[in-house]
Amino acid sequence: MPDRRLDVLAIGNAIVDVIANADDAFLAAHGMHKGAMQLIDEVQAAKLYEAMGAAREASGGSAANTVAGLASLGLKAGFIGQLASDQLGAIFSHDIRSLGVAFDTPPRDGIGATGSCLIVVTPDAQRTMNTFLGAAQVLEADAVDPGAVAQAAILYLEGYLWDPEGPRRAMYKAMDAARDAGTKVAFTLSDSFVVDRHRADLLSLLEQRRIDILFGNEIEILQLAGATDVERAVTAIAPQVQTVVVTMSEKGALAVRGSQRAQVRAQPISALVDTTGAGDLFAAGFLAGEARGLGLDKSLKLGAICAAEVIQHYGARPEADLRALAKSVLD
Amino acid sequence: MPDRRLDVLAIGNAIVDVIANADDAFLAAHGMHKGAMQLIDEVQAAKLYEAMGAAREASGGSAANTVAGLASLGLKAGFIGQLASDQLGAIFSHDIRSLGVAFDTPPRDGIGATGSCLIVVTPDAQRTMNTFLGAAQVLEADAVDPGAVAQAAILYLEGYLWDPEGPRRAMYKAMDAARDAGTKVAFTLSDSFVVDRHRADLLSLLEQRRIDILFGNEIEILQLAGATDVERAVTAIAPQVQTVVVTMSEKGALAVRGSQRAQVRAQPISALVDTTGAGDLFAAGFLAGEARGLGLDKSLKLGAICAAEVIQHYGARPEADLRALAKSVLD
Repeated sequence: MPDRRLDVLAIGNAIVDVIANADDAFLAAHGMHKGAMQLIDEVQAAKLYEAMGAAREASGGSAANTVAGLASLGLKAGFIGQLASDQLGAIFSHDIRSLGVAFDTPPRDGIGATGSCLIVVTPDAQRTMNTFLGAAQVLEADAVDPGAVAQAAILYLEGYLWDPEGPRRAMYKAMDAARDAGTKVAFTLSDSFVVDRHRADLLSLLEQRRIDILFGNEIEILQLAGATDVERAVTAIAPQVQTVVVTMSEKGALAVRGSQRAQVRAQPISALVDTTGAGDLFAAGFLAGEARGLGLDKSLKLGAICAAEVIQHYGARPEADLRALAKSVLD
Repeated sequence: MPDRRLDVLAIGNAIVDVIANADDAFLAAHGMHKGAMQLIDEVQAAKLYEAMGAAREASGGSAANTVAGLASLGLKAGFIGQLASDQLGAIFSHDIRSLGVAFDTPPRDGIGATGSCLIVVTPDAQRTMNTFLGAAQVLEADAVDPGAVAQAAILYLEGYLWDPEGPRRAMYKAMDAARDAGTKVAFTLSDSFVVDRHRADLLSLLEQRRIDILFGNEIEILQLAGATDVERAVTAIAPQVQTVVVTMSEKGALAVRGSQRAQVRAQPISALVDTTGAGDLFAAGFLAGEARGLGLDKSLKLGAICAAEVIQHYGARPEADLRALAKSVLD
């Protein structure tokens, strides 16, 4: 395999999170499913924002959080995502570049505002997300440079981005480039509603052997496999994808690769504050292990370490130096 | 005294904080004085922002933080400050209104961007601030409605806003309205560099008996009085102002009113994270006590409780319900 310029190149939503606390009654009053992500338009976003309490803002986006984690672990990461030329776009752009992530997608005018995600954190630390994709949904295939994909060891794709047509085309283009170059393709299912909306597409990606590493939580994996039991779901999916990784919140995670199987417990934490970014950071740790060729056990362990960091504070980007936290496993 | 519609009406900078961590070497490399606030222009702000690491954003502004604290304590507060019609302005506006604060200053176009404060938090939890005032500095006297001042029990003014001319005129206008209506005037010195730049003005405000409650930390009070000892400084200032409050970080705070004198220790905390907003929230607690007529001891105690909350997390606005934290003193 050639020496790659990037360990991981990700395509995802370039959005800024707006995080407020609220109780379960607030979720009910606004028809939200706890723990899920729903897409909302600009008018709905304005209305919901007005109803929300005082908030804090921080760069977000699922795959973007993952590359932030990879950068914090000391890996070379790149990101492709669409911003508008506005203040939220400047925030996103600053934050991801300040981590050393290669991010060159030019912001565009006349495409509305930069996307944002209105996140409600309930007292149980669960996050419920309402995403106004904004500029993120008009990412075009032109934004993907096949040469850049070819120079990455792993291409990482965000399931959330499967909804809008342009980004889906961009991801197909990137997968083609990855296949030609021997770049591994990792894909996260992102959300059970995504699986619900696009199950046929996702199953066909698996059948075509376009995905090498598949990430999902228990519900997403069950839904994709049409199974009622995680073991059976994994058994059904495993023959079509090199590596399946199932995250199971406080129960840890498991990975299956051919006849190999590995499992990890969740890391102990001192205070659960906000679960936003848990899956994203788990993926960061796991992909770091894969990029370094560390094997399933260590990759899972890295995932657990990174996820544990991010759920102990508000916001979906790591605040601690993940490389230091993961030193014993990485080195 | 008439039944007032507002407990406290504040005039201050309407700005959004951009908070990043950095070490002492970063402060040195960028010529910052640890713990101080310096004003920077848009070009300097862009350059500094580029050098800063990944950040989190949250509404800020000294007096705005104080009214946020007052609202959290259950008091009726209002705010006057200038925003631009942009995304940061929308964030500030949403956050302060969501707390129940009356905020009606219309945002304006063509006055540049909403102000922001680039805050560097060092490992010792000290905050060093670099403020791009932006729209905040073009607040005009027209924004002050004398009728609204007359309906407030206390008018609270932010020393930071003494630099730009328009807001200074707005504050003079508000002080005149306060004198006519029997509204008490509280003033915070904000920063030692503010005292340095405007000492003559500030001394003349005291001579003219325009200020009823003066807030400052030890350095600011020493500088204002031209003294080298806090006791002497307070003795020198006290005859010209009804109440002097001196905050002394981990040593607590003291208040002098005529022949009365009271002192409070800092509240115990479990983790010092970010001192941003400590003085602002101390002022919130003290003013709440004053508005309720609780006397110096209880007012100081409320100040200490509110300051302790805000320094245990990032950001200058309270995250906990201050009314609940302060219940034993307030009720």
